[in-house]
Amino acid sequence: MSLSEEKLIGKLAMLSVLDETYTSHVDVLGWQQCIGKVGSMESNKVVAAIETAAKKNEIINGSVYRETHALYHAIMEALHGVTRGQVQLGTVLRTVGLKFSIVRGTPYEKEAEGEWIAVALYGTIGAPVKGLEHEAIGLGINHI
Amino acid sequence: MSLSEEKLIGKLAMLSVLDETYTSHVDVLGWQQCIGKVGSMESNKVVAAIETAAKKNEIINGSVYRETHALYHAIMEALHGVTRGQVQLGTVLRTVGLKFSIVRGTPYEKEAEGEWIAVALYGTIGAPVKGLEHEAIGLGINHI
Amino acid sequence: MSLSEEKLIGKLAMLSVLDETYTSHVDVLGWQQCIGKVGSMESNKVVAAIETAAKKNEIINGSVYRETHALYHAIMEALHGVTRGQVQLGTVLRTVGLKFSIVRGTPYEKEAEGEWIAVALYGTIGAPVKGLEHEAIGLGINHI
Amino acid sequence: MSLSEEKLIGKLAMLSVLDETYTSHVDVLGWQQCIGKVGSMESNKVVAAIETAAKKNEIINGSVYRETHALYHAIMEALHGVTRGQVQLGTVLRTVGLKFSIVRGTPYEKEAEGEWIAVALYGTIGAPVKGLEHEAIGLGINHI
Amino acid sequence: MSLSEEKLIGKLAMLSVLDETYTSHVDVLGWQQCIGKVGSMESNKVVAAIETAAKKNEIINGSVYRETHALYHAIMEALHGVTRGQVQLGTVLRTVGLKFSIVRGTPYEKEAEGEWIAVALYGTIGAPVKGLEHEAIGLGINHI
Amino acid sequence: MSLSEEKLIGKLAMLSVLDETYTSHVDVLGWQQCIGKVGSMESNKVVAAIETAAKKNEIINGSVYRETHALYHAIMEALHGVTRGQVQLGTVLRTVGLKFSIVRGTPYEKEAEGEWIAVALYGTIGAPVKGLEHEAIGLGINHI
Ligand SMILES: [Mg+2]
Ligand SMILES: [Mg+2]
Ligand SMILES: [Mg+2]
Ligand SMILES: [Mg+2]
Ligand SMILES: [Mg+2]
Ligand SMILES: [Mg+2]
Repeated sequence: MSLSEEKLIGKLAMLSVLDETYTSHVDVLGWQQCIGKVGSMESNKVVAAIETAAKKNEIINGSVYRETHALYHAIMEALHGVTRGQVQLGTVLRTVGLKFSIVRGTPYEKEAEGEWIAVALYGTIGAPVKGLEHEAIGLGINHI
Repeated sequence: MSLSEEKLIGKLAMLSVLDETYTSHVDVLGWQQCIGKVGSMESNKVVAAIETAAKKNEIINGSVYRETHALYHAIMEALHGVTRGQVQLGTVLRTVGLKFSIVRGTPYEKEAEGEWIAVALYGTIGAPVKGLEHEAIGLGINHI
Repeated sequence: MSLSEEKLIGKLAMLSVLDETYTSHVDVLGWQQCIGKVGSMESNKVVAAIETAAKKNEIINGSVYRETHALYHAIMEALHGVTRGQVQLGTVLRTVGLKFSIVRGTPYEKEAEGEWIAVALYGTIGAPVKGLEHEAIGLGINHI
Repeated sequence: MSLSEEKLIGKLAMLSVLDETYTSHVDVLGWQQCIGKVGSMESNKVVAAIETAAKKNEIINGSVYRETHALYHAIMEALHGVTRGQVQLGTVLRTVGLKFSIVRGTPYEKEAEGEWIAVALYGTIGAPVKGLEHEAIGLGINHI
Repeated sequence: MSLSEEKLIGKLAMLSVLDETYTSHVDVLGWQQCIGKVGSMESNKVVAAIETAAKKNEIINGSVYRETHALYHAIMEALHGVTRGQVQLGTVLRTVGLKFSIVRGTPYEKEAEGEWIAVALYGTIGAPVKGLEHEAIGLGINHI
Repeated sequence: MSLSEEKLIGKLAMLSVLDETYTSHVDVLGWQQCIGKVGSMESNKVVAAIETAAKKNEIINGSVYRETHALYHAIMEALHGVTRGQVQLGTVLRTVGLKFSIVRGTPYEKEAEGEWIAVALYGTIGAPVKGLEHEAIGLGINHI
């Protein structure tokens, strides 16, 4: 497989969001990473929180559109896993509490494959009442 | 949170599919679990492989429809995370190689919440050519 | 409401598929109707069965595309209710056994609203094993 | 068919929303049922109205998440039939006026199949202008 | 092909939105057309702008529901091309700047095919920041 | 707008598929382009035809996954415009006859934005019977 076994960017992003001790694995590779949290009934706020964290932590260069574009589609793909059908939260009366991990690195053995970005989400989704919720997970990956 | 911190069924299912050493965490809880693999361009074969493993390993009772129904929807939800938009593989010229973990347990503190089932998927998705692929993840959770 | 209370085409189509005694209500209005059955794992066969019945029973004129087009979209909308997310059957390992009713009539009080077509579906959806299924319903309505 | 012919929960829910005389059929079976109405351009208000009615009429126990979860997914599935593509109302400039019926019962012959819940919706969908609308129907069914 | 080569309503609508010199092609056919612009993060405002333009320019008769219905579905189909997955804008933190062309005419050789309506959209979609955007296109066609 | 007015890659791709005289505009910019045709009821064959043309005409380097990945998502986005809801053809009993244009170039003024790819589709979609069809259009754009 062209994906290098020690450089599985999606797995690393997901593990680091599930268990913070894994963030060191990303550091060892010399890749960039940031971890954050967002809770909202408004899906646009979830997108905004992840984008803001990525820019503030310089995972992406916010003034270059191709980087914003790569990240945006990775976020949307990750939200598909969390929402499973309609990328909607409050409009279908549900809310999320999510931890997110954004990793930028070079997961492929061939240098020509360049950089990729992974967005991993883990948390809960459910009614806007504490406890009426179950877990949800999403992963989006894109070339950058 | 009503979800017991040590009994996060989704997290445990996902961790055990990412790293097999985590399967013991599920055993400690006395929950049922099975792990398997499936690779296919046919989405129905992916569904069938997971259903068959769940029945064969007695995670669900295949002769009770409510159990099959709970599992089916959990699988479909997990596939949303893997496919991110259209639950289609070969019909849009892509294939998956997935590892799956099915966990059945009691993640909530309150006994009345009963049993739940989690289906975690991790692997690669891409063109039907080795190496032209990236990682994908999905998680589906349902009451059973 | 511009929809005439005694001419609710969707309600009449649905009632006649749930209980054949209601077909007389459609006849009284002088509207056209046909009722049929289709069972398949192949979604295209479901579409074909409904289209064929509509043409054979002269509910639509199969040689006029605008009539075929109106019916096709009504069928697709009805299938959304049956499939609830992805208009797929066998590709996600499920099958349907459906009764369908196609009604063509003039449900609006104003003459300018002209003819409309309703496709009502009722039956079961589930695993390709007898009994592992629950009911499903769909209704599609279009101007013709 | 394992679904008992006199206990077709989806059919009974749909018939009772189309014609109130059918509510007695549900009573005869000793099942629980409630009927209500909701009109809104905000999809979350439709979900809320159905959930509130179910709790207030004790169709579900609102303090047990598994019951809320079962109902929520049944509502979402029913809304797929009503919206046919995107579970959106005001955000795509349309509004609904719906009658709903929620039925909880034991539709399968085998006792092990336990309780199920059906949400049937019938009404109109259209532009936010009286009369610019057609009928819409949805049914969601889940084990509870 | 029953579609007359010089009367390709979709092509004409799209060309006239891409290059205004093409609007004369529509005039030559004696068809109705209007062109407009809308920029918004609110998807309902995009729908409203197109509907309002169509009524004001008498492309459709706003007091006849079947005409509004035909236009509405054509708009929704065109928005699928622009949004590519979820017909959402601000709720997924993106905005559009669109030019639209609405054409009503008789694209088929056979007279029985009657009138059809095409809605063509062209513009940009992206983050709510000038320049962080790429182009998007959509076309919806319906019988009217 | 950061998109250079003379370098609107999506517009150029769409115009060249609607009217071949526009292909010279792409040549003038020194960008790469190829034009082709595909007709099929099988959505995977549509994807394959476009991918094959892009590789054969060296629009993308088929041995570099990031290029295949960029093209694949552009194709899928373009297909959303053509299919408007479900990226399915034969499985919902419809077929397409499409002309496609693939353009690779540098549409942004800032050099850092690098190369982008556009896939434009134009043709007909309809029943698998000649003439029972209307036009369809799709555009997908991605950074490469
Ligand atoms: Mg991808
Ligand atoms: Mg759920
Ligand atoms: Mg409609
Ligand atoms: Mg179900
Ligand atoms: Mg159509
Ligand atoms: Mg994009």
